[in-house]
Amino acid sequence: MIKVGIVGYGNLGKGVTLAVNKAMDMECVGIFTRRAPETIKPIVDYPVYSVDKLDEFVGKVDVLLLCGGSATDLPKTTAKLLEKFNTVDSFDTHAKIPEYYESLEKIAKANGTLSAISIGWDPGMFSIARTLFGAVMPDGKDYTFWGKGVSQGHSDAIRRIDGVVNAIQYTIPKEQALDAVRSGLNPHLTTRDKHYRECFVAVKDGADKLAIEKAIKQMPNYFADYDTTVNFVSEDKVKEMQRKLSHGGLVFRSGNTTDENAHLLELSLKLDSNPEFTGSVLTAYARAVARLSKEGRSGVLTVFDIPIKYLSPLSESELRATLL
Amino acid sequence: MIKVGIVGYGNLGKGVTLAVNKAMDMECVGIFTRRAPETIKPIVDYPVYSVDKLDEFVGKVDVLLLCGGSATDLPKTTAKLLEKFNTVDSFDTHAKIPEYYESLEKIAKANGTLSAISIGWDPGMFSIARTLFGAVMPDGKDYTFWGKGVSQGHSDAIRRIDGVVNAIQYTIPKEQALDAVRSGLNPHLTTRDKHYRECFVAVKDGADKLAIEKAIKQMPNYFADYDTTVNFVSEDKVKEMQRKLSHGGLVFRSGNTTDENAHLLELSLKLDSNPEFTGSVLTAYARAVARLSKEGRSGVLTVFDIPIKYLSPLSESELRATLL
Repeated sequence: MIKVGIVGYGNLGKGVTLAVNKAMDMECVGIFTRRAPETIKPIVDYPVYSVDKLDEFVGKVDVLLLCGGSATDLPKTTAKLLEKFNTVDSFDTHAKIPEYYESLEKIAKANGTLSAISIGWDPGMFSIARTLFGAVMPDGKDYTFWGKGVSQGHSDAIRRIDGVVNAIQYTIPKEQALDAVRSGLNPHLTTRDKHYRECFVAVKDGADKLAIEKAIKQMPNYFADYDTTVNFVSEDKVKEMQRKLSHGGLVFRSGNTTDENAHLLELSLKLDSNPEFTGSVLTAYARAVARLSKEGRSGVLTVFDIPIKYLSPLSESELRATLL
Repeated sequence: MIKVGIVGYGNLGKGVTLAVNKAMDMECVGIFTRRAPETIKPIVDYPVYSVDKLDEFVGKVDVLLLCGGSATDLPKTTAKLLEKFNTVDSFDTHAKIPEYYESLEKIAKANGTLSAISIGWDPGMFSIARTLFGAVMPDGKDYTFWGKGVSQGHSDAIRRIDGVVNAIQYTIPKEQALDAVRSGLNPHLTTRDKHYRECFVAVKDGADKLAIEKAIKQMPNYFADYDTTVNFVSEDKVKEMQRKLSHGGLVFRSGNTTDENAHLLELSLKLDSNPEFTGSVLTAYARAVARLSKEGRSGVLTVFDIPIKYLSPLSESELRATLL
């Protein structure tokens, strides 16, 4: 059995908890939280400890699944935990991945530990698709679409506008853009062509809705480059929508082997729960880290470095006989 | 530069030739054929040799791309060539892969050579999807569809019927089956539910069309379990259709993380030319074999064993910076 620990118990931590519970080859030594452990009743009956107790688990856990956020949690916690533990995380600030990789690689090599970073669906499964598709179809063009799904950053940006009580923002791929890509025309698509943004906003009594709608639609970086629709709804409605954390997306590669022969490669994900699916991907890669560490590997790995066989509970010969 | 040799110059060999020509990090030492070399004018201006000359290239080529058929060519030629060369092949008789693997593994290990087997899109990219999807969504169901594309075996079977001059058969996924899978209903699908078969048949003057249609539709193993349509067309029409070797398919995984939350994962390929696309996949894996061999690896590998990074001409840090 692979022994795992879950660090952090927000939405992602809950998703990981569910996934670890479904993994027949894993047992969970505990959930580790910065909150008071007694305030947490986990969705599966695993022991809950303060993160301060982690030191007592050195040598007793094969891999820690880190369920903090990329903005502030992971850069700090991964570096520290990697001195004593193998780790898996979902660091997803694309622009900062090289720097994050370099800093952790030194720590892992110095301590003989192993870390899989930026695991999930994007970065993660979409990165595999972009690289595999590009390698087998070098003369071609990539398209990545996200959604329909909630953008936390855009929802936050709306909430900062004066008069707004609560808000949720959906990023939605435009059907006509998907159709253009699927037609094999290799279209040039601007930011505005690819996605639109749909906002559901609850405002204070007597707030100037027209001014708020304008403030949203003209907000640079977040909305100005997009077609945006704004719907004013009740606070209860926003709260209800916030309970459903669905997401998804598509990766396309459209290319040619000759002038006459075109090829279209497509990966599509439709996810009812982003944190539960991401937690499930993290758990499969935790299996890989535990195995590779037992084989003596140390350092930092991404999805590009890990053979697919390490993710599956099946043996190599079972995989060849049943899934090849 | 990676030095490759191309063994066999049928449809797949031509596809590989085109792909090697597009690979900036590869050079082709030659195309090796069992035919008289002077009878072949390759689509790219590479030297053509008799396969008997291959011995003169020992030590001068990093990897051979084997472009023979699975039925008779590959089992014999791969075993022999692997004594002296690294190889990549597209062995696709699913049921015989374990046996093929075992027999080649002994030869490769004894000779310090490296072989990637069963490379292409199915087996190959679809195998990656089935395994990755299954690992990240263990509580779920797999669906693989093929087509629209030509089945060579079914076309051959029709041609053996008395009175038939020529024939081509397309395997086509049923839209209602795709819709049922995409709806997330996890339907139980029989063979008949998933695909139908469309036949275009040219017959001799005065042949009994009704009897031929019946012979096709009732043929056990090939057609009896399917909904089949038979179209009688001219010999020229069949020949024209035989020039377009398009194919494709889809891999789905439909699963749940909780009773409420379902997830749908889909890989789809639409290929204008099956041999050109397969040749392109073989070429990407030839890059991996050349690199892994330089790192000292020997033995037999499948798509399950090879990290995605080895397929790309980009460096590891470029991959992390641009495609992760």
